[in-house]
Amino acid sequence: MADIARLAGVSKATVSRALNRSPLVSDDTRERILALASSLNYSINIGAQNLRLRQNRTVGVVVPYDADARHELADPFFLSLLGSLADALTARGYDLLLSRVDAEQLDAAATPYDTGRVAGIILVGEWRGHAQLDALAARQVPMVVWGAQAPGQRYVSVGGDNASGGMLATGHLLAAGRRRIAFIGDSAQPEVAERYRGYCQALAAQGLAPDPQLCVPASFQAQDGAHAVHELARRGAAYDGLFACSDLLAMTAINALRTLGREVPRDVGVVGYDDIALASYFHPPLSTIRQPVRAAGEALVATLMAQIEGRPAASLQLPAELVVRR
Amino acid sequence: MADIARLAGVSKATVSRALNRSPLVSDDTRERILALASSLNYSINIGAQNLRLRQNRTVGVVVPYDADARHELADPFFLSLLGSLADALTARGYDLLLSRVDAEQLDAAATPYDTGRVAGIILVGEWRGHAQLDALAARQVPMVVWGAQAPGQRYVSVGGDNASGGMLATGHLLAAGRRRIAFIGDSAQPEVAERYRGYCQALAAQGLAPDPQLCVPASFQAQDGAHAVHELARRGAAYDGLFACSDLLAMTAINALRTLGREVPRDVGVVGYDDIALASYFHPPLSTIRQPVRAAGEALVATLMAQIEGRPAASLQLPAELVVRR
Repeated sequence: MADIARLAGVSKATVSRALNRSPLVSDDTRERILALASSLNYSINIGAQNLRLRQNRTVGVVVPYDADARHELADPFFLSLLGSLADALTARGYDLLLSRVDAEQLDAAATPYDTGRVAGIILVGEWRGHAQLDALAARQVPMVVWGAQAPGQRYVSVGGDNASGGMLATGHLLAAGRRRIAFIGDSAQPEVAERYRGYCQALAAQGLAPDPQLCVPASFQAQDGAHAVHELARRGAAYDGLFACSDLLAMTAINALRTLGREVPRDVGVVGYDDIALASYFHPPLSTIRQPVRAAGEALVATLMAQIEGRPAASLQLPAELVVRR
Repeated sequence: MADIARLAGVSKATVSRALNRSPLVSDDTRERILALASSLNYSINIGAQNLRLRQNRTVGVVVPYDADARHELADPFFLSLLGSLADALTARGYDLLLSRVDAEQLDAAATPYDTGRVAGIILVGEWRGHAQLDALAARQVPMVVWGAQAPGQRYVSVGGDNASGGMLATGHLLAAGRRRIAFIGDSAQPEVAERYRGYCQALAAQGLAPDPQLCVPASFQAQDGAHAVHELARRGAAYDGLFACSDLLAMTAINALRTLGREVPRDVGVVGYDDIALASYFHPPLSTIRQPVRAAGEALVATLMAQIEGRPAASLQLPAELVVRR
C-alpha cells in the first residue's frame, strides 16, 4: 500500500479507501489508484494479518449484468445454479458472497478476493471477455468460470457439453422423422455456438445441411421464443421440428405455435435446453437437454476448493443428457 | 472480549476463535463461549476499528434449512426473491452474503452481523421460532424478516397480505360459480394460515362454511399438489374449484387432475399463489395471486437500510393482486 501511495502521491489511507471503493475518494483518484494497483498486481493481503480472514470461509459468486440491458437476475437456470452453489458451499461450511459486475468490466469480479473478503471466486452467467478472464487467472486469483471452454484459455472453467447437447436434441428430432428443424438461439454466445455446432453435426450425419431460413437469433429472454416462431411464420419457412436453446424459449415458442393453430408435438416436435424444474410440469411435458445443476454446483465448488488448497484444478465438461418427454 | 475470556477462563485469542467458529476450538469450549457471549449480548465490534468494515457495503441474506428434510434451495419463488434482493442491493452498491442456517437454531442467523461481516440481515424462507427472532430484535441486530406479521412481534417484517390473497383467490372461484372449493396448503405455516383465513372469509361472505373434507395439508414441495388431488379422490370428495398455496402446487395438481380425466378449467377451476414467471407460460395459463417479488426485494432492502442508518422502520404488508388468466 505504501508503494502505491508513493507512486500515486496520496496517503496510505486514501489508497485503502480507493481499494475499498469508498465514496470518500473521488472517481478520478480511485481510478488512478486502481489502475496502479492493477499494474502492480496488488492484492490487499488482509488475510495474513487477520485471523478472521485467514480462516476465510466465504466464496464469492459473481454474476455479470449487461449495463445496457440491465437484465434482472431472473433466469430460472442461473437462479437454480445459484441455489445449487449455496447448497454445495453450505455443506462445506462456507458462505456465499453474491455480487454483480458490469459484464464489460470483468476486472471488478476479483475485487471481493483482492480485498480479502472471499477465499476464491466463481463466475456464473453469460460471459464475454475471455482476455480479461485470462488476466485474472494470470495473477493467480482462485477462480472458476461457468461456461464453454475457449481454445487456449488460461482460466479454469466448468460447463456443460454443449456440442453433445445440440447433437442429442437434434438427433432426437431426426430420429422421430423430423426433417426441417428450426434452431432458436444466439450463436454469438459461446455456449449457444457449441449447441449450433452439434445441431449441424446431427444434420450432417443424416446427409442434411442447415437451412439459414430456419435459424432464428434469440436472446435468453423468454419472449424471444414466441418472437422467433412469428419470425419463422413471416419468412414462410416450413418446419416440423424446433430446437430451442432454453426451456423458457421452448415454452413461449410452443405457446406461440398454439396461437398459430399448430399443435405440439403433432405438427412440430420441440426440444428445449436446461431441464428447469418446470419442464416436466409443462403441457405437453417438455423434452429437453438436462444441464446437471446439482452436479454443476458441486463441480464448481470442488474445482475452486482445489485451487484454494493449492491442488491442481483442470477445466471440466459435464455430460449433457437427453430427457425424452412428450 | 476480555470480559468473556475472564468469565470463561480462556485467552482472548480463544474467545476470538470461538466467535469466528474456528475449528481450532473444541465444540465444548465454543458452545460455552457462545453461550456466554449470547448472555452478555456481545457483538464483535470490528467495524469500529476497521475502515473496510466501517464502510461495510454487504448485507446478509439468511435462508433457513430444515435439518431433517434438508430442503435444497430450489423453490422458484424464494430464488426469484433472492434475485430481486441481489438487484436491489446492487443498485445501492451493496453485495449480498448468502448463508443458510438450521431453522431450529435461528440465533446463528446473526453470526454474520456479530462478526462484523455484514451491516444487517434479511431473513428469507419458511420461518418458525418467533421468540428467537424477537430475541435478535431485542439486541438491536439490524434485521428484516420476510413473512407474516405475528401479533406483538418485536422484529420488523415485510410480507404479502396473505389473508387478502386467500380471499381474492377464493372470491374469484366463487364469482365464477364454483361452490365446492378445495384448499391445498400447510396451515401450520403462518403465511398459509393467513391464506386459509381469507379462504374462510370469502366462503362466509357467500354463506358457505369450509368443508374439512376439502382441506388437504401439503408442504411447498411441488409434488404435494398431485398428492393432494389423489387424496381428494381417495376421500371421494366432490369439488369444482381448487385453491393451491403455490403455483407449483397448482401446476402438479392440474397435471394430476388431467390424469384423472378432469379438465381445467372446465371441470375444476384452479387458482395458484406467487405468480412465478412460468405461471403465464403454463397451459392453461394459470390464474394466481401475485406476490410482488420486485417490490418485495426493494421493500426488504429499504426497511433494512432505514435500520442501519438509524431511521425508524415499521413492518409492512405488500398488497396481494389477483391475476386472472385461463
